[in-house]
Amino acid sequence: MELSKNMRNSIFLILLASLVLSATRCKGGVTSTYRRRLAASVDMPLDSDVFRVPAGYNAPQQVHITQGDVDGNAVIVSWVTPDEPGSSVVLYGTSKHNLDKMKTGKHTQYKYYNYTSGFIHHCTIRHLKFDTKYYYAVGIGQTVRKFWFKTPPEVGPDVPYTFGIIGDLGQTYDSNTTLSHYESNPKAETVLYVGDLSYADNYPDHDNNRWDSWARFVERSTAYQPWIWAAGNHELDFEPSLGEKEPFKPFKHRYQTPYRASDSTGPFWYSVKRASARIIVLSTYSAYGKYTPQYRWLEEELPKVNRSETPWLIVLVHSPWYNSNTYHYMEGETMRVMFESWFVQYKVDVVFAGHVHAYERSHRISNIAYDIVNKNCTPVPNEDAPVYITIGDGGNIEGLASNMTEPQPSYSAFREASFGHAIFEIKNRTHAHYTWHRNQDGERVAADEEWFTNRHWLPASN
Amino acid sequence: MELSKNMRNSIFLILLASLVLSATRCKGGVTSTYRRRLAASVDMPLDSDVFRVPAGYNAPQQVHITQGDVDGNAVIVSWVTPDEPGSSVVLYGTSKHNLDKMKTGKHTQYKYYNYTSGFIHHCTIRHLKFDTKYYYAVGIGQTVRKFWFKTPPEVGPDVPYTFGIIGDLGQTYDSNTTLSHYESNPKAETVLYVGDLSYADNYPDHDNNRWDSWARFVERSTAYQPWIWAAGNHELDFEPSLGEKEPFKPFKHRYQTPYRASDSTGPFWYSVKRASARIIVLSTYSAYGKYTPQYRWLEEELPKVNRSETPWLIVLVHSPWYNSNTYHYMEGETMRVMFESWFVQYKVDVVFAGHVHAYERSHRISNIAYDIVNKNCTPVPNEDAPVYITIGDGGNIEGLASNMTEPQPSYSAFREASFGHAIFEIKNRTHAHYTWHRNQDGERVAADEEWFTNRHWLPASN
Repeated sequence: MELSKNMRNSIFLILLASLVLSATRCKGGVTSTYRRRLAASVDMPLDSDVFRVPAGYNAPQQVHITQGDVDGNAVIVSWVTPDEPGSSVVLYGTSKHNLDKMKTGKHTQYKYYNYTSGFIHHCTIRHLKFDTKYYYAVGIGQTVRKFWFKTPPEVGPDVPYTFGIIGDLGQTYDSNTTLSHYESNPKAETVLYVGDLSYADNYPDHDNNRWDSWARFVERSTAYQPWIWAAGNHELDFEPSLGEKEPFKPFKHRYQTPYRASDSTGPFWYSVKRASARIIVLSTYSAYGKYTPQYRWLEEELPKVNRSETPWLIVLVHSPWYNSNTYHYMEGETMRVMFESWFVQYKVDVVFAGHVHAYERSHRISNIAYDIVNKNCTPVPNEDAPVYITIGDGGNIEGLASNMTEPQPSYSAFREASFGHAIFEIKNRTHAHYTWHRNQDGERVAADEEWFTNRHWLPASN
Repeated sequence: MELSKNMRNSIFLILLASLVLSATRCKGGVTSTYRRRLAASVDMPLDSDVFRVPAGYNAPQQVHITQGDVDGNAVIVSWVTPDEPGSSVVLYGTSKHNLDKMKTGKHTQYKYYNYTSGFIHHCTIRHLKFDTKYYYAVGIGQTVRKFWFKTPPEVGPDVPYTFGIIGDLGQTYDSNTTLSHYESNPKAETVLYVGDLSYADNYPDHDNNRWDSWARFVERSTAYQPWIWAAGNHELDFEPSLGEKEPFKPFKHRYQTPYRASDSTGPFWYSVKRASARIIVLSTYSAYGKYTPQYRWLEEELPKVNRSETPWLIVLVHSPWYNSNTYHYMEGETMRVMFESWFVQYKVDVVFAGHVHAYERSHRISNIAYDIVNKNCTPVPNEDAPVYITIGDGGNIEGLASNMTEPQPSYSAFREASFGHAIFEIKNRTHAHYTWHRNQDGERVAADEEWFTNRHWLPASN
């Protein structure tokens, strides 16, 4: 191709302008200099008070709730009775002293190597009123235990709502600090949990008693507000050497999700609406290749998201797609290359991941231009793209991941190896205030914060 | 760093030499100009003679065999009795007239939407002698049917052996041509089948009668020589709209693999030794992310491959990692980014894939240098890397995929949109002769051919 001198000059100017533009759009990144002790975390001993077994024969323990349908009118109540099946009934009502409604659930039990679980009850309560405080009770006779939860407001585009985000919590002293720190936030009403719960698999023979202790530890939150579960690698408990060849066996028995309500066929990928948000949960450790159930589900789910109803589109996945820590570096690539273009097409607002035991927030970037023969394989600024947040800093036993890749890549906006949790506070259809809280600070202190503007309603720089 | 002039000159010469070397090593690619009719293929009608039901009440049909252990001393014999369970016994022996041994298998049955299968028998015969012709019979009384198979020679590094490779066969007139064409090869003793068998899912309600007809169609080969099965997307039969939410249900009931023998925990990833080859089968449509069962199995399997025992390391997978057809372009990326570096590290000789309904052979290339922040994301020549061959040109109902990406990428050595099959003829530990046979030619004509030199024993250019 022959180009005239004028054309060449024009092209040169356009390229120069693009370069300048891209340089101005390419914000810098911060590697926080904050440092804390880097000793491995230690699990709290089983006789620690945080793991206490409620008094009384066969008293219900490990009580936890999660959303039970798509819209938020249902709650799944789960608990364990240790000694005998007992009752799978939940009594509930809006008056503390008059639990006038009743629902009967089911119970299950499983064996894992040399461990036999207690009786695990799941009961889905439906047709609840929105924005209402419900009291509920499980157990029989002397060992009835009472709790309460608040249903979300009716789904709508400008409904304010505040989510907490926790990942990789475990059951160390740090885990306890993280949970207490989260609890001190008076606003957060629901936890988005990005996987890796108990780390029982770090114990000899995957000691499943640590699944029990974890659930007792977090009961002080999970019994009162729903935790939306994503599955992590520590939920796999796949150990052929113990004869345990069924992935996710303990997790599947213990934690239920409302996957059928969103037309999913598997428990680890599903979606719920809550207030002004649609939350899509994906499974890093299930198949997601083209034609697979998870792929087909997501392909059908994304076009269904109505941003006029739920402006905020949030995705939870365990393994991050953008991570500049050396720990688990590039592990998310296999899923990223499959789905990233959809996230940009459907303008996902934010993707929360865990897995890496540190904190990181990305700029809005995408890496979807690659076609094998071109060299366009670098993350570039993209206002249609989500912010990717790694929040695998709950406090688990494996300790902090403090080795960052250097220099900080351009896609990384902020990173720090501290334990903590995040808060995503939706104000209305256009704005949400996001904060990250490291455990060493008071809850009102944000170690990282950002105003998010909605990708559908106000797709400007945030 | 300061460099002396001499050093700079030396470095310049080395770089120049590398460039020349890489240029000479970077072979060109051929897009075959051969053209055939591009009309969609048409399935043979159900009353076609190739689908004939054997005469007699409850006569065994759909007889097929596959390897039953790792070393080749066992065979799984499978068949269907349509009317009642009948017998799951296989009689066998080395004399045609004296089937003096007996093994009793099991039968299974499944429902798929409005279809109920016949009685599907599977019987694993073990402790067979190597390199021996066995006769076998299934069925009772008037409807006994007899066949034979030949066990492979004992595993050893210089044992010659010839494999046929077929993919995406289906049951069209073209499929019949492909199978006949393959059968006319007097040498091929085992089929490596890279997935997509019957295409029953292309029929209303996934008419599973087409699973039956397909198995009757191929019986003329599958009853006499083992077909090593890889699962394709058309085996998924995942159709929630029909209430069918269990992926691979018909395939799993009909086709068995010896996965447990190679310590796999799932039927679609496993390995077998046969003569001088180790064949690793992977599943495109199962989970393969880090920590998943398939990942962990492959991570443990690859170091076990003993090239002094089985010099030839062959991988089967359905969706190709290197494909320059526009059809299914880049679908294999999600698995490639996960496993490609292992294939280079362990010097896989050749990877056969299907899925794309055309033929393509790659140069030895790899694309494993990418680290997100560099731009090294182009396939480059690599003598440690496998040759990637797409052989999804069996003849299925969806027709040929004739739109190639242009220009032909440098990784592509030869490509043509014709139906056919391939032959991989191992001569000894160092050499194998590979040929591709388009259906329009006689079997002795190779439309593409290549001498393979073994990556472990003679890792020179092939």
